[in-house]
Amino acid sequence: MTVFKNRNDVTEAIVTTRVAKGLSWKSVADYIGHSKEWTTAACLGQMTFNAETAAKVVALFDLDASALAWLQVPPSKGSLSGNAPADPLLYRWYEIVSVYGPTIKELIHEEFGDGIMSAIDFNMNIEREPNPAGDRVRVTLSGKFLPYKAF
Amino acid sequence: MTVFKNRNDVTEAIVTTRVAKGLSWKSVADYIGHSKEWTTAACLGQMTFNAETAAKVVALFDLDASALAWLQVPPSKGSLSGNAPADPLLYRWYEIVSVYGPTIKELIHEEFGDGIMSAIDFNMNIEREPNPAGDRVRVTLSGKFLPYKAF
Amino acid sequence: MTVFKNRNDVTEAIVTTRVAKGLSWKSVADYIGHSKEWTTAACLGQMTFNAETAAKVVALFDLDASALAWLQVPPSKGSLSGNAPADPLLYRWYEIVSVYGPTIKELIHEEFGDGIMSAIDFNMNIEREPNPAGDRVRVTLSGKFLPYKAF
Amino acid sequence: MTVFKNRNDVTEAIVTTRVAKGLSWKSVADYIGHSKEWTTAACLGQMTFNAETAAKVVALFDLDASALAWLQVPPSKGSLSGNAPADPLLYRWYEIVSVYGPTIKELIHEEFGDGIMSAIDFNMNIEREPNPAGDRVRVTLSGKFLPYKAF
Amino acid sequence: MTVFKNRNDVTEAIVTTRVAKGLSWKSVADYIGHSKEWTTAACLGQMTFNAETAAKVVALFDLDASALAWLQVPPSKGSLSGNAPADPLLYRWYEIVSVYGPTIKELIHEEFGDGIMSAIDFNMNIEREPNPAGDRVRVTLSGKFLPYKAF
Amino acid sequence: MTVFKNRNDVTEAIVTTRVAKGLSWKSVADYIGHSKEWTTAACLGQMTFNAETAAKVVALFDLDASALAWLQVPPSKGSLSGNAPADPLLYRWYEIVSVYGPTIKELIHEEFGDGIMSAIDFNMNIEREPNPAGDRVRVTLSGKFLPYKAF
Amino acid sequence: MTVFKNRNDVTEAIVTTRVAKGLSWKSVADYIGHSKEWTTAACLGQMTFNAETAAKVVALFDLDASALAWLQVPPSKGSLSGNAPADPLLYRWYEIVSVYGPTIKELIHEEFGDGIMSAIDFNMNIEREPNPAGDRVRVTLSGKFLPYKAF
Amino acid sequence: MTVFKNRNDVTEAIVTTRVAKGLSWKSVADYIGHSKEWTTAACLGQMTFNAETAAKVVALFDLDASALAWLQVPPSKGSLSGNAPADPLLYRWYEIVSVYGPTIKELIHEEFGDGIMSAIDFNMNIEREPNPAGDRVRVTLSGKFLPYKAF
Amino acid sequence: MTVFKNRNDVTEAIVTTRVAKGLSWKSVADYIGHSKEWTTAACLGQMTFNAETAAKVVALFDLDASALAWLQVPPSKGSLSGNAPADPLLYRWYEIVSVYGPTIKELIHEEFGDGIMSAIDFNMNIEREPNPAGDRVRVTLSGKFLPYKAF
Amino acid sequence: MTVFKNRNDVTEAIVTTRVAKGLSWKSVADYIGHSKEWTTAACLGQMTFNAETAAKVVALFDLDASALAWLQVPPSKGSLSGNAPADPLLYRWYEIVSVYGPTIKELIHEEFGDGIMSAIDFNMNIEREPNPAGDRVRVTLSGKFLPYKAF
Repeated sequence: MTVFKNRNDVTEAIVTTRVAKGLSWKSVADYIGHSKEWTTAACLGQMTFNAETAAKVVALFDLDASALAWLQVPPSKGSLSGNAPADPLLYRWYEIVSVYGPTIKELIHEEFGDGIMSAIDFNMNIEREPNPAGDRVRVTLSGKFLPYKAF
Repeated sequence: MTVFKNRNDVTEAIVTTRVAKGLSWKSVADYIGHSKEWTTAACLGQMTFNAETAAKVVALFDLDASALAWLQVPPSKGSLSGNAPADPLLYRWYEIVSVYGPTIKELIHEEFGDGIMSAIDFNMNIEREPNPAGDRVRVTLSGKFLPYKAF
Repeated sequence: MTVFKNRNDVTEAIVTTRVAKGLSWKSVADYIGHSKEWTTAACLGQMTFNAETAAKVVALFDLDASALAWLQVPPSKGSLSGNAPADPLLYRWYEIVSVYGPTIKELIHEEFGDGIMSAIDFNMNIEREPNPAGDRVRVTLSGKFLPYKAF
Repeated sequence: MTVFKNRNDVTEAIVTTRVAKGLSWKSVADYIGHSKEWTTAACLGQMTFNAETAAKVVALFDLDASALAWLQVPPSKGSLSGNAPADPLLYRWYEIVSVYGPTIKELIHEEFGDGIMSAIDFNMNIEREPNPAGDRVRVTLSGKFLPYKAF
Repeated sequence: MTVFKNRNDVTEAIVTTRVAKGLSWKSVADYIGHSKEWTTAACLGQMTFNAETAAKVVALFDLDASALAWLQVPPSKGSLSGNAPADPLLYRWYEIVSVYGPTIKELIHEEFGDGIMSAIDFNMNIEREPNPAGDRVRVTLSGKFLPYKAF
Repeated sequence: MTVFKNRNDVTEAIVTTRVAKGLSWKSVADYIGHSKEWTTAACLGQMTFNAETAAKVVALFDLDASALAWLQVPPSKGSLSGNAPADPLLYRWYEIVSVYGPTIKELIHEEFGDGIMSAIDFNMNIEREPNPAGDRVRVTLSGKFLPYKAF
Repeated sequence: MTVFKNRNDVTEAIVTTRVAKGLSWKSVADYIGHSKEWTTAACLGQMTFNAETAAKVVALFDLDASALAWLQVPPSKGSLSGNAPADPLLYRWYEIVSVYGPTIKELIHEEFGDGIMSAIDFNMNIEREPNPAGDRVRVTLSGKFLPYKAF
Repeated sequence: MTVFKNRNDVTEAIVTTRVAKGLSWKSVADYIGHSKEWTTAACLGQMTFNAETAAKVVALFDLDASALAWLQVPPSKGSLSGNAPADPLLYRWYEIVSVYGPTIKELIHEEFGDGIMSAIDFNMNIEREPNPAGDRVRVTLSGKFLPYKAF
Repeated sequence: MTVFKNRNDVTEAIVTTRVAKGLSWKSVADYIGHSKEWTTAACLGQMTFNAETAAKVVALFDLDASALAWLQVPPSKGSLSGNAPADPLLYRWYEIVSVYGPTIKELIHEEFGDGIMSAIDFNMNIEREPNPAGDRVRVTLSGKFLPYKAF
Repeated sequence: MTVFKNRNDVTEAIVTTRVAKGLSWKSVADYIGHSKEWTTAACLGQMTFNAETAAKVVALFDLDASALAWLQVPPSKGSLSGNAPADPLLYRWYEIVSVYGPTIKELIHEEFGDGIMSAIDFNMNIEREPNPAGDRVRVTLSGKFLPYKAF
């Protein structure tokens, strides 16, 4: 087993091992004890684990012990490079796609197989979500799943 | 009143008139008879009106009659230029930000004032939405509203 | 009527007048005497008219006589800017999208209304088309039309 | 034989082995049981195999057994980076070039040798293809093959 | 006096009038009742005024009454286009330069004349600023002012 | 231990070793005898050590002796690539983010954990800092820390 | 007649007038007394006229007298923006396309009509051209002309 | 000797071996039996060899037998990435620089040593080259060779 | 005479008037009382005039009185957009080309006519220039002037 | 000792060995017999050595004999990628920064230590340098050295 020199190497090992072991993201999330969305993002190198969840990840994916520290270091996040929108409100949405996009891809494929969520047969709803710690913006997006078919 | 030479000019006239008249997007949507999300996107030049809704838009915003035809022509859509993600599933999310981003900005500001929807104090949920016409991907995003404050 | 200073101005006048008069591209093509694909590309400023077809365009769209010369000058073509693929075979396909893309958009909208041709529910066929003047590559693309729906 | 750590490594192995063995894409397609277009795209890492076709690929190209899982995971698709057109209809055509471009290159070369499909000596036809599951856009492109010649 | 069609036109009018009248940003801020930093950013089109401060701006800069509404609409913010850093923490700093950069330029020039704040003869300090509403990051940057000199 | 061929390799070794040993940047700074801000920037390859501090770095991180020379060579600095603002005053701020951004990221995470410094719940102050060697621009930035939370 | 404020405006007037008058570049060159290649490049704003040839241009294209001075000022040259090759020898070729490209386009169209010079059915020869003032590189490029055809 | 996994590796081996053996491109061309221009482009990975010339290349450069197949596969061509001109006629010239640029560089250096072909002390001639298989565009470029000199 | 709304408009007026009046930059510099290098840069909108020199500029170029204030406001500087080198030392040289490039172009053309300063027939010298206010870097660049010649 | 496969590998070996041996560029230049500016540029892979100086470089830096040929092959030059100015005169200055920038960085650091040459406390002089082989442009740049200081 190799000593890990950075978080990227740990992420690659997790990705490779998950496929080799045939683990679903849902099962990883159940084992870790967080939502499938946060768990996937964290395993893909976008979030920071605490000592307890890092240890579970090391165990589940048979990682070298040197992964333990890297999983607890705040990683460099985001997957999109290129011209981002300058407006801060618009940018936060671009950032969501940048930080959570690979997670969304993994989870849609896990649930539906290869294909996309349509942006044409699509609707959305934006509403206020009252919250004592400060109201939230709640956005619901619904797009038809369109599968790739072999021909 | 000027004769409109393309859809962009119609969009600019709508945007200018809406602010001058102090109309909320919600009230425009109620008048048009569609959701505030679709109505705003359409008024910002991203969607195509039918004859009936186009006539309502012309009336509500006191537009020159030449707007009537332009509102019914499928427009050139999208607001993001720059390096888009190549993967089709990821691209559909980038496209949602490109096509609906200005709508989201307008509607969050209308409901909350100036500020952003946080991508840090944030969570998301991805689930299957059964539908006889083909199952859909339903994604719910929740982010705390953070206001800009004068200092 | 304004004297035209370049081909772009002629193109904009055609685009504006076609919508104002409610002419379909198909009817323009029948009047000009070429396919709807070539006619649309030419009217959008991508192809060169000869003296006879240029005169028809001037008449159909009530253009100033100065348009007659500009319609017969080979125009600056293409609509895509950005990183193109370096390989010559791949580039030719990128060029087809660049030169004929706006034509494809117009004609699909004319036939189907607002929406897209799916690249997911999609198949293609590549075959040799024997031709005494040199064999040709014949590619057939078939994608489901997906309409935008108001919500 | 090396254990594969991701789909890219599997794709490179297929590409290398195909040339070394002198297999045509047509023969691979016949063996897999799909069209030459889908088969080539899939072997180039753009499509997902099912268990049965993945096993055939592993056998045909003498791949390590670890390839079996990777061939069944939806891959990251697309080969074009750079400024894509923002309009969704135009983008779908750009995506076709991005996802299927390398496939088109392989199959034209397999049929005609080194050269290009002309975008100048070229014509196209766009038509409605009626289909009970939703009408389709059928586009036929025909371009003369132009060979590179040694000099 | 012209009717304003968007916030940009209002901003340009403020910028032109301020120089013509010889008003300092400090004096504008005193009149408006906010800090010179916020006031400058707001006058440069990055912040939203309330009804009271918008009225003061209209009066101070002799703007057409149509400016009143535009000054109260959340504007499109940011001045930097190009590749932004993907990491959210780094991006927030890039955003500060994008949103407040022109303000910083104005205020340094107002205080020191033409020149720059050195990034070489420079030091910085990062510390925790306890706050009952949530602790804050307090960063102090100090750079020598270097004047341009005519030669 | 490997002989270092350039400064980048030394930087990577420091980064890896710091995490493996669990050293805080604050403790490294105390050992080196400089501020945590300068020390972090220097360890991340942005500043030049003198003979004395280079020796301490080699000792603290158990580096091969060949690191000693590289740590004393002025490095290639900056971490941002892409369109920078052309104006020299604005550029110096962009440069601060480019040279010190990774340092800021490390030190905020060390003090607060994973999260960001808000650019929305934010204020700033620009003032003259008198100095006999030439007056300085002193800028104080204060932004609320917003933590990432697992969900 | 308008007073010209810069060279670009003069160039646009020449381009418009040439088409309106139906003058060939060859006839302009004969009138000016230089090659068709240099004359076209100069008329397109890439070269500097002397007093005598500038006067001829003003007369031939009925330009306002203010054009006389602008035609004798060395212009800002080049038409290509984007990533240029860094190597100086390669760059000179990129510069030839940038400075003379629009000239080549005009002259090929004038001789052959709309179409392209093939880069596939193409050959080239590079040789030393002895010259007492310093030997020259002589490159001969030959590409088949491929016409666009209406369909 | 290593088994070649793609054409790039074959190209690198040719480039390295040619310098090590001190072979001129002219001598390689004589051995292969084609022009020095085509031969250099082909050896640099831009053209496809037939069975006979591929065998000569393998022999001349002492390549592993696995190179034989790769040299006969149409390669991915072109060396320029970045914004290409959209117009098809201009693009073909950009493509010539992209595909043949490295060849031009090699052959000018072989004939003249290190330096450039001037784009300033430069002239060009464009003419029709009658040809029964279709007339050709013949362009002659002549630029003074300017040597780099040590100082 | 038009009222100036920003510095760019003033710069354009200076550029137009200088050519119309046939004034050399040298004569402008003598009139202003600064070097030809600083004067040209300032007139091209890169430097700030004081009250006295601004008044001279207004008089010399017959500008509207509103130019007086704009000439004394520190302008937005720089002419290069695109990827700048990240290293601060290298960037300063890029900035010199960005801020002073148009000045260098004007002055070389004024002295030599149309052409370039060679970067091939070129040499440079870097030396320390002792100075009680802090030593300076003195760099001398010498490149042969190469004229464009009509052909 | 490794056999060198290209010039880049030779350059990296020189850079590594120079630091390891503690050789100044000045001493290398004295040994080679050229200016420190040309010598540094050549050692950094921008210039071509002749047989005699190549042999000295191999000896001084203990390089494998295979370096001898590579040092005498004209290298691929330039270090700047991105949008270059299109105008040929401006481009030559951009090219100077691209080709000689790393040399300037090395030599300023060797003479002054870590820091920059100011582009603010800066002046320049452009003059004609008479020369029987063709007059030259002589440009003298003087900028204050600003050191980085640890804090």
